[in-house]
Amino acid sequence: MVFERYRPEIDAELRSVLVGRESPLYAMIRYHLGWVDEQGHPVPGSAGKCLRPTLLLLACEAVGGAWRQALPAATAIELVHNFSLIHDDIQDDDRERRHRPTVWSIWGKPQAINAGDSMHTLANVALFRLADRGVALEKQQHAHHLLTETCLKLVEGQYLDISYESRLDIGVADYLHMIEGKTAALIACSLEVGALLGSDDEAVIKGLFNFGRLVGLGFQVRDDFLGIWGNPDKTGKPFGSDIRRKKKSFPIAYALEKARGKAKEELLNIYQKEVIEDHDLDLVHGILDALNAQAYTQGIAQEYLEGALKEMRRLPLMPSPARELEEVARFLIERDF
Amino acid sequence: MVFERYRPEIDAELRSVLVGRESPLYAMIRYHLGWVDEQGHPVPGSAGKCLRPTLLLLACEAVGGAWRQALPAATAIELVHNFSLIHDDIQDDDRERRHRPTVWSIWGKPQAINAGDSMHTLANVALFRLADRGVALEKQQHAHHLLTETCLKLVEGQYLDISYESRLDIGVADYLHMIEGKTAALIACSLEVGALLGSDDEAVIKGLFNFGRLVGLGFQVRDDFLGIWGNPDKTGKPFGSDIRRKKKSFPIAYALEKARGKAKEELLNIYQKEVIEDHDLDLVHGILDALNAQAYTQGIAQEYLEGALKEMRRLPLMPSPARELEEVARFLIERDF
Repeated sequence: MVFERYRPEIDAELRSVLVGRESPLYAMIRYHLGWVDEQGHPVPGSAGKCLRPTLLLLACEAVGGAWRQALPAATAIELVHNFSLIHDDIQDDDRERRHRPTVWSIWGKPQAINAGDSMHTLANVALFRLADRGVALEKQQHAHHLLTETCLKLVEGQYLDISYESRLDIGVADYLHMIEGKTAALIACSLEVGALLGSDDEAVIKGLFNFGRLVGLGFQVRDDFLGIWGNPDKTGKPFGSDIRRKKKSFPIAYALEKARGKAKEELLNIYQKEVIEDHDLDLVHGILDALNAQAYTQGIAQEYLEGALKEMRRLPLMPSPARELEEVARFLIERDF
Repeated sequence: MVFERYRPEIDAELRSVLVGRESPLYAMIRYHLGWVDEQGHPVPGSAGKCLRPTLLLLACEAVGGAWRQALPAATAIELVHNFSLIHDDIQDDDRERRHRPTVWSIWGKPQAINAGDSMHTLANVALFRLADRGVALEKQQHAHHLLTETCLKLVEGQYLDISYESRLDIGVADYLHMIEGKTAALIACSLEVGALLGSDDEAVIKGLFNFGRLVGLGFQVRDDFLGIWGNPDKTGKPFGSDIRRKKKSFPIAYALEKARGKAKEELLNIYQKEVIEDHDLDLVHGILDALNAQAYTQGIAQEYLEGALKEMRRLPLMPSPARELEEVARFLIERDF
């Protein structure tokens, strides 16, 4: 699949950002990225799909740009994403990610905060390397500006996500507001920066931004779908973990908004409990079923996909990368892992 | 004093970086900066001395530059410093800073991580405003590069500081290696960037960097001095807090290196205890006294001050800001709060 095509060069660029950085601080980063084990011994392969860098490079190609020029931006985006994951795992007390222990569960939370902070900074280091690829200074600056503002939106989304955990008055509109920041912003930025580095056509850049935003929204709704109805063996998330954590994911925000009478009362009771137990999970599933939430959730994800594809099809793009963008968008919204 | 001169404009520039940012996320930042109380109500004054921005602007003036041009860099430095404080308070479990509850002690650690992350990002936002002050793109980029690499050194220092807490084999050289990153790097960067924005003379820029580095080292050694022998009413740090936290501050690193026989044994015993008690504090003070650590520590701070002033005096600087730089350097290394 298309994720494989750019991977060796994304990986090489990422590794080169860390070359010569010898503080043991960076062992945590190399571990998180899947290059080494806990003891620092190299392991084969690398973690993650590199979704955002792939989208960025595809966008660059789709507008007729030379994708290798955009590699530093692709790695910067991946580093921003991963810094937010390291901090997210601390915030959510998650001991496992991608079937491996999280950074904080090995090195402790104080040092994991440092790991995230240095990775955040390395994203800026990565971006400066656009200069070595012959990208004009104005364009570098523009890309840097976009990534920085996106980073703020990302953290604003994280803030909302956490603040929603202790709230019961969350509906679909609140949910969408949150994922605009938490998920859609960085995916939209990937497309926008990729297009910006390959083209000066503002309408196309904006169009790919819109495509990315809609893909991002659909991606997150699908993620929430899998968080409740996915196969734990495939997703790597234990059954019921989103519900136990009181995450106001799409199906739950929908249920909180739509449930009436006894169902609503039951739902509120469960989400006010200190600890959500096994039989509560069954009750929540029952309420979701009665509201037909599973089909509704996937319908919404599908709508975002269709909106995204519609947006893309009216843009003057190179046919082959455009097909691949469509392939990735479909994968993100229809995947089962 | 000189800290008052630039303060209104530093404050105005800082506030303008946050204008229009309405997410409740930023309430934590406004609180940390001392602009509002816990409920978000404005309070008079602002927190902190703005030491680093002041040094940056003085350096700019000292090389004949127009200091207002450098204001965006001054605020960026202050934001980097403060993001690291917010995360540092989480890492150290500190409930109080500048006589006020810390961000995490009010909003919880997960949200305080977000506060620090967004402040880190805002430092980049602040720096982009150099463009509005007519700074050439190459120079903006150069300043950005320096601040980014400094940020990595800062986090590397933080990493060491935390890793030393559980170690007993720390001597003066390890300590110095740690504060090069934790403290000296950002102060040196303040001087360097200030000079860079006011001059193209590489020798002068480098000279002010060296001055800043030595001032930073002396500043931290003085801080450690005050952490053990300072007046808690003036420093705002409870008596014995550095020792209780097993911080390998300068006097302790010195004692671990120099103590022999029974004193060494006693010191190692205390620093291996789960909890350091009141009578342990007395023992540690006794060991430090026997090694004459108090005078030695202040002697080292003084040596850094003298080295810094010697470095500065051979540079062709404007007399008035140069005098003020000297005044600030003396203050930092001789202050008692």
